Amino acid sequence: MIQSEKELDVYLSAIQPLDEAAMVQAQKKLNNLTKPTGSLGRLESLARRICGIKGGLDVHVDQKVILTFAADHGVVEEGVSSFPQEVTAQMVLNFLSGGAGVNVLARHVGAEVKVVDVGVKTPVSGEGLIARNVKPGTDNMAKGPAMSIDEALAAISVGIETAEQAIGEGANILGTGDMGIGNTTPSAALLAALLLAPVDDVTGRGTGIEDAVLAHKKEVISKAIEVNREKMTSPLSTLAALGGLEIAAICGVVLAGAKNRVPVVVDGFISSAGSLVAMLMNENVRDYCFFSHMSAEKGHEVFLEKMDIAPLLHLDLRLGEGTGAALGMGIIEAGVKILNEMATFGEAGVSEGT
Amino acid sequence: MIQSEKELDVYLSAIQPLDEAAMVQAQKKLNNLTKPTGSLGRLESLARRICGIKGGLDVHVDQKVILTFAADHGVVEEGVSSFPQEVTAQMVLNFLSGGAGVNVLARHVGAEVKVVDVGVKTPVSGEGLIARNVKPGTDNMAKGPAMSIDEALAAISVGIETAEQAIGEGANILGTGDMGIGNTTPSAALLAALLLAPVDDVTGRGTGIEDAVLAHKKEVISKAIEVNREKMTSPLSTLAALGGLEIAAICGVVLAGAKNRVPVVVDGFISSAGSLVAMLMNENVRDYCFFSHMSAEKGHEVFLEKMDIAPLLHLDLRLGEGTGAALGMGIIEAGVKILNEMATFGEAGVSEGT
Repeated sequence: MIQSEKELDVYLSAIQPLDEAAMVQAQKKLNNLTKPTGSLGRLESLARRICGIKGGLDVHVDQKVILTFAADHGVVEEGVSSFPQEVTAQMVLNFLSGGAGVNVLARHVGAEVKVVDVGVKTPVSGEGLIARNVKPGTDNMAKGPAMSIDEALAAISVGIETAEQAIGEGANILGTGDMGIGNTTPSAALLAALLLAPVDDVTGRGTGIEDAVLAHKKEVISKAIEVNREKMTSPLSTLAALGGLEIAAICGVVLAGAKNRVPVVVDGFISSAGSLVAMLMNENVRDYCFFSHMSAEKGHEVFLEKMDIAPLLHLDLRLGEGTGAALGMGIIEAGVKILNEMATFGEAGVSEGT
Repeated sequence: MIQSEKELDVYLSAIQPLDEAAMVQAQKKLNNLTKPTGSLGRLESLARRICGIKGGLDVHVDQKVILTFAADHGVVEEGVSSFPQEVTAQMVLNFLSGGAGVNVLARHVGAEVKVVDVGVKTPVSGEGLIARNVKPGTDNMAKGPAMSIDEALAAISVGIETAEQAIGEGANILGTGDMGIGNTTPSAALLAALLLAPVDDVTGRGTGIEDAVLAHKKEVISKAIEVNREKMTSPLSTLAALGGLEIAAICGVVLAGAKNRVPVVVDGFISSAGSLVAMLMNENVRDYCFFSHMSAEKGHEVFLEKMDIAPLLHLDLRLGEGTGAALGMGIIEAGVKILNEMATFGEAGVSEGT
């Protein structure tokens, strides 16, 4: 458990850059496969980066784990969501019984879903649930910080520890996921504060709110940024002021992936907010992240453009949970299989181009 | 075997529109699943359209077959490709031994690859090859028609018959694939002629030709269109004049899918040229086609924009063979599984939004 900013700094300092030599070797191998050079486009660059992460050409991403963190948000008392808060806990049970979107898509790509209660308000339990509740929902960020620094560190630690547990059990690729009624509100607030983006540009309809609620949501976000302005002096303190417990945990997963040289497939809007905090904490983190898709949630395109990130998929998803991460894992695995399984020109007796 | 334009018309007249009632039922079911309405975006619209194709809600796309057609092109004598012509036959052997890109990606999504020789110049044989050689490569379209009408009908029939054979054996989703050194040249010519697009806009670098070869390729395409102009009075006669045998076979697969109410996942640039001919033959065909990705080959974006088609993936692929179709099948199956496997609000005890 990371208990201080100093301990966090020690953890961050262990995150290394990609292995450039491994990527050069990977490119050489890719160029010798039976296809015109570069003709498998992003599949090739995915495979190359996986080699840079793993530090060699013996790479596999077949042990896939999606970590889906659930938590509640004090700011929902401002009336920013169209779903009641108890849905967070209800959806946790749905995840555990395998009926949610992320379960279906994880099964489709051969990934396991681990469900973590990092801050659900309604007491919830069930077989398979990883119970790591830091507090039963954040405080209302429109009135003060959503979390203390210690609470944010605790939630980050839940992400780090559940990720490292999965890695210890064999996971060679991680995906992030979220569940938390109201959580597009703190995510939009984080993007606005950390990217210096207008609130109007990063605030969308979440689960599907009407115009009047959307206008109110923007006011709430602006107020939260104003109320907490003096506290927000670093990525960590900004996360504490405006974030969610699940967003902090996702930040932790990204950090753990980067430190342990395991690729992290980032889901959509909420996961991007968590990954943004991690990327701002250490410049090497970004190279360990694969952004699975561009969400239909309005602010995600702004985030991707500002960060110059090309997401893998454009399918107008906006569900979260890790659904996009699951599909992204399937694409990344396709790239790795190209590297591992295609015949070379020599092996296949195919003439090369001029 | 379709032996005349009249017989083709009879085949085309059996292609029906989608089942609108099934799509309404599918939307109703999708809206009742545990997610905000519409939040799985294109996965939902894919599932809905599959229901419209199959005519009900009991839909599966788990028996996947990719039909990869190989053929040669007389126009390569003009010097339009960077690979020697014998590579077509060499790659057929690579497909049969499982080492090509399409093999790897088909295995990844659980699809079978059927390899069809519809017009390879170099005699080729091997276990599993479907030998349906119509002629050993087209004639040089820069000097006259690439095929006679009868040859084009024969190649279309190869596509129809291999597709219907696969459907008879249980395939519930088909993918198209191509192999043919030089085949971006006839594909670009077909797009230019059928979409009335400037040759410059639809002609790209194929396997990776240099600037001077690209300029020459454009001249060859313009010349082919000029030489054959009077013969091109219909989609069929244009296909005969400018097409390839594999392109005609792909046209046949698309027609067979539409007639038999089986979804067809169209691969990239070459497959789009084949599907375009099919779509122009009958207005209902389009709804049975799923365009898997936007190729990095220059003219594909022009095709997609002119036809107002939103492809599923943007991964800068330009290999052909059915590689993009394989990945597209995986996404479509994800959508169908959402429809089939997700819990409803009632089943999961989750409160609905307001």
